[in-house]
Amino acid sequence: MFWPFRDLHYLCTQKNNEKDMALDKVGKYEFLAEPFHCDFSQRLFMGHLGNHMLNAADFHSTDRGFGMGWLLSVNRAWVLSRLAIEMDEMPRMYTRFNVETWVESAMRFFTNRSFRVVDVDGKVYGYGRSIWAMIDTETRQPCNLMDIRDGDLMNWVEKDKKNPMETLSRVKMDDKAEIVRTIDTYYNDVDINGHINSVKYIEHVLDLWPIDWYRKHHVRRFDIAYVAECHQGDRLTFYREQTADNEYCIRICKDGEQQQIEVVRSKVVFE
Amino acid sequence: MFWPFRDLHYLCTQKNNEKDMALDKVGKYEFLAEPFHCDFSQRLFMGHLGNHMLNAADFHSTDRGFGMGWLLSVNRAWVLSRLAIEMDEMPRMYTRFNVETWVESAMRFFTNRSFRVVDVDGKVYGYGRSIWAMIDTETRQPCNLMDIRDGDLMNWVEKDKKNPMETLSRVKMDDKAEIVRTIDTYYNDVDINGHINSVKYIEHVLDLWPIDWYRKHHVRRFDIAYVAECHQGDRLTFYREQTADNEYCIRICKDGEQQQIEVVRSKVVFE
Repeated sequence: MFWPFRDLHYLCTQKNNEKDMALDKVGKYEFLAEPFHCDFSQRLFMGHLGNHMLNAADFHSTDRGFGMGWLLSVNRAWVLSRLAIEMDEMPRMYTRFNVETWVESAMRFFTNRSFRVVDVDGKVYGYGRSIWAMIDTETRQPCNLMDIRDGDLMNWVEKDKKNPMETLSRVKMDDKAEIVRTIDTYYNDVDINGHINSVKYIEHVLDLWPIDWYRKHHVRRFDIAYVAECHQGDRLTFYREQTADNEYCIRICKDGEQQQIEVVRSKVVFE
Repeated sequence: MFWPFRDLHYLCTQKNNEKDMALDKVGKYEFLAEPFHCDFSQRLFMGHLGNHMLNAADFHSTDRGFGMGWLLSVNRAWVLSRLAIEMDEMPRMYTRFNVETWVESAMRFFTNRSFRVVDVDGKVYGYGRSIWAMIDTETRQPCNLMDIRDGDLMNWVEKDKKNPMETLSRVKMDDKAEIVRTIDTYYNDVDINGHINSVKYIEHVLDLWPIDWYRKHHVRRFDIAYVAECHQGDRLTFYREQTADNEYCIRICKDGEQQQIEVVRSKVVFE
């Protein structure tokens, strides 16, 4: 599930013109709502939008010198801790849209990265916000972001661009949540790091509702916190609790030796 | 599962220059092996490669005037009947590669479409071949391709470009195949037409082997035949039979009212 930024320079040529111009603090990357990435209503799936946001984060950080390739050479890696997405509308099949991303703030152990999803004419589809930590790849312990390139990350913090989303807060759940599904994890669930793919969790959570539910509801806001790593073969148990009208909290646990271990916590607000 | 070509003109601007030049019989479309689309070995997943091939088919046919948009106006739709992919090597994470596609042959009720996957320097990763039919969207009956635009499809048949893959043949299975898995289908399995997504079947088939298997084997050839449609909620049963060294046939059935109905048949050859 951990998502490291990658430092490969041909990424700069992705779908943006950044290579040939002075770098702005805000990066902007174009994507296509591919038909196989759209649901029955011909709108982009939330999981694929999340994937595009993580790609945008990767391109942006790589272009600015704090990508994973260089980080790896100093035994560091980015770790996605939380992601929230709040959408007025999902891009329709075949639409070209842009994901803008910028560093909203940076502290010693965490950085906030924002996203804005806009169409080519500037219409805003919605926003995203994420929290990232950095770990030492040998000790797996958190590292101080300010030790990296003398705290250069601070020079990329964009203070003027606003993200109107409510800030990320811990998803609160009590013990009333009920088991609603248990699934096994397979080969296609696993990412390049050998962990269950961050995007797959989004899909598994949204799969808790049947397609008929989505004929009458769409996801207004999706929050997910990545708590612990999973590997292929782990059996995942989903607990769900309704916390308000059209608001549900989900806890995903894996089986541990003595007891279940929480791996993901998520909240979905429908409209 | 049915995959219609779509006739939306901005697709012409996809990742190719075809818009501004006379159209060749062979279309060529560039894709990126996105990190979240790669497996633990940092190679593109077979399902995502299949997706790119279907995208290429869509762009190619749309650019040449037999895309779905126009077809729909005359109550016709493309239906993917078979797909086979044979790879020497899978593109590595972050690699840019091209999917070339062309119409290999066309008969009254079926057309063969070929694919070649190459890197930017021309190195060949592998090939694909597919069979498509056309249906009347009202009666769901097959239609004669030669009735479409006075058989213009024949003018796009490319005879000189070779595809060295063995031709597609029926996957033969006997009754010895054993049930190896039963899965439910969910919201994220469903495509824009309300059927189980063609690409998801590829993933579900390859998920029958654990990740440790893939540490020692890679897929040399993958064949899939789409026999009947499924919808969200259908329960799929997977039957598997080993037919040679490193060769397995898979039958997927859904529960019918009286008995199970075969929906997909597939063959996987590992190396």
